[in-house]
Amino acid sequence: MTDLSYAQFIYIADLIGVAVFATAGALAAQGKRLDILGVVVLAIVTALGGGTIRDITLDIHPVVWIADTSYLWTAIISAVVAFVVCRYIQYPRRTLLVLDAMGLALFAVLGAEKALALELPPLIVVMMSVITGCAGGMIRDIITGQIPLILQRDGELYATCALGGAIFYIVFKEYMPGEVVALSSMMIIFVLRMAAMFADLRLPEFIVTGHKLEKIKKDKNQ
Amino acid sequence: MTDLSYAQFIYIADLIGVAVFATAGALAAQGKRLDILGVVVLAIVTALGGGTIRDITLDIHPVVWIADTSYLWTAIISAVVAFVVCRYIQYPRRTLLVLDAMGLALFAVLGAEKALALELPPLIVVMMSVITGCAGGMIRDIITGQIPLILQRDGELYATCALGGAIFYIVFKEYMPGEVVALSSMMIIFVLRMAAMFADLRLPEFIVTGHKLEKIKKDKNQ
Amino acid sequence: MTDLSYAQFIYIADLIGVAVFATAGALAAQGKRLDILGVVVLAIVTALGGGTIRDITLDIHPVVWIADTSYLWTAIISAVVAFVVCRYIQYPRRTLLVLDAMGLALFAVLGAEKALALELPPLIVVMMSVITGCAGGMIRDIITGQIPLILQRDGELYATCALGGAIFYIVFKEYMPGEVVALSSMMIIFVLRMAAMFADLRLPEFIVTGHKLEKIKKDKNQ
Repeated sequence: MTDLSYAQFIYIADLIGVAVFATAGALAAQGKRLDILGVVVLAIVTALGGGTIRDITLDIHPVVWIADTSYLWTAIISAVVAFVVCRYIQYPRRTLLVLDAMGLALFAVLGAEKALALELPPLIVVMMSVITGCAGGMIRDIITGQIPLILQRDGELYATCALGGAIFYIVFKEYMPGEVVALSSMMIIFVLRMAAMFADLRLPEFIVTGHKLEKIKKDKNQ
Repeated sequence: MTDLSYAQFIYIADLIGVAVFATAGALAAQGKRLDILGVVVLAIVTALGGGTIRDITLDIHPVVWIADTSYLWTAIISAVVAFVVCRYIQYPRRTLLVLDAMGLALFAVLGAEKALALELPPLIVVMMSVITGCAGGMIRDIITGQIPLILQRDGELYATCALGGAIFYIVFKEYMPGEVVALSSMMIIFVLRMAAMFADLRLPEFIVTGHKLEKIKKDKNQ
Repeated sequence: MTDLSYAQFIYIADLIGVAVFATAGALAAQGKRLDILGVVVLAIVTALGGGTIRDITLDIHPVVWIADTSYLWTAIISAVVAFVVCRYIQYPRRTLLVLDAMGLALFAVLGAEKALALELPPLIVVMMSVITGCAGGMIRDIITGQIPLILQRDGELYATCALGGAIFYIVFKEYMPGEVVALSSMMIIFVLRMAAMFADLRLPEFIVTGHKLEKIKKDKNQ
């Protein structure tokens, strides 16, 4: 364990993140009458969509999963396992959410690191961090015909956690060694996400003048 | 004012276009129960989506908003302002539509100019023009779970205005100085769009044989 | 006919594939109240979306339809013809499905060939094959507000046929001359797709524990 270098730790954690995101993507197929290939496609999109958009936008080639097929295999196997296991036992929803929060923390920080390595300005680093962590889930929601959960008022904080971690990363990277700031940022994202889930933190909703009144009227009519 | 070069004019107009599109994107969140981050995401996608797709397809790197963060800041600030202001006063819908038509005119012509600078054939120039002007709005509609308005029969002419302006630009760019043809194309798109809104211009609808009859039957059954 | 080289055959077949996919894309607009421009956009996305995503992901520039505008013209003309013809006669649905199966076969094999030319690992080759064959239709379904048909249980096998052909291609390309293995793979995809349509082949559905019971309960309540 002590022999594990930081790079190895990141690589393994990254694959775990892919596995978790892929499982979450596969489980999103629930009740949508998808077949096994559809489930695998959803899993791949959820797990690798964010990183792909980041790499293409930043012109980093080859894209992460083309350079190393372990990512794709991890996503595919996780989806197939979820597909089979789901027929017999229920996935522990709470465990999955915790793992998903870890995946988000890791992906967001890795996204920030990739952008920083290209010496991009802070705003772009934050954006790449959020894209890496959240875009996959957004595309999954769009494919399954939903308004992406992470944009919604009813949804708990999600992208905001990545945002917070990325800002911390940028501010403190000058004052701490790289690995410390990376791990601290991950912790912050993870803790924020846990707090959002269990303490029900929320952002203000978008309200348009008159909108609330209209709603009340509608309710009365029903 | 007279010291303003064409390049400066274009840059400022471009940022105004981003602000208008971002505001329109933020307002599209109305009634969707999005939180502030969701509104900012919608605004960024609406304002910068078209240009991003154009740059990635044409392999122009860095992408416009990565090279210059003013674009992103403009979009974010516009969205936050729209988010806050909307709680207290109603946005003047008509003013917004006029500004949006200006944004469309500008984005479409800038898209055409970028493609022409790469000496691409006219068809591609027209496509890039339409993509730059309209793709952002399309992605916004897809994210919020609607069939993109600009494709619909009920929608007024939108992409068609960009198309008309781009064709004018290509045909007349040989015979006029660059700035004159660019400004004329913008004017044409703007006027077409205004005419579409206030004179209710439309394109023919897609009708399939038998389809109308089926509809009549359905109406009778109700 | 005998003078036709393999390259020429592929080029012509490719354009036919574009025409068929574009027609299928245009017909998908049925009942959605799109205008002619919307129909052309859907046609272009269906016919060229898969190839575009493949080229951008693999960093192949210029993208296929930018390098040669015949692709775009073919898609546009097919869409306009479908738009006009549909008002007067019904498209022979069965013929279209057969042509669509040919398009799928061809696109999938061409996608595999492009990836192999870059010496990518087998898994990526298979993915590019499926993306080239199926992504265009997926985007079309997303734009028109549907869960992509090819992911669904009710849908017949589609992506799976491309998958089968791509795997055959990779396994046998060492043992056969390039053109023979390419044509054989196309035949396999085409035959699989025909079998799926007329013999009703299907993949297992995604079932979650308890899910069936819930459904029965729901049915009872109604």
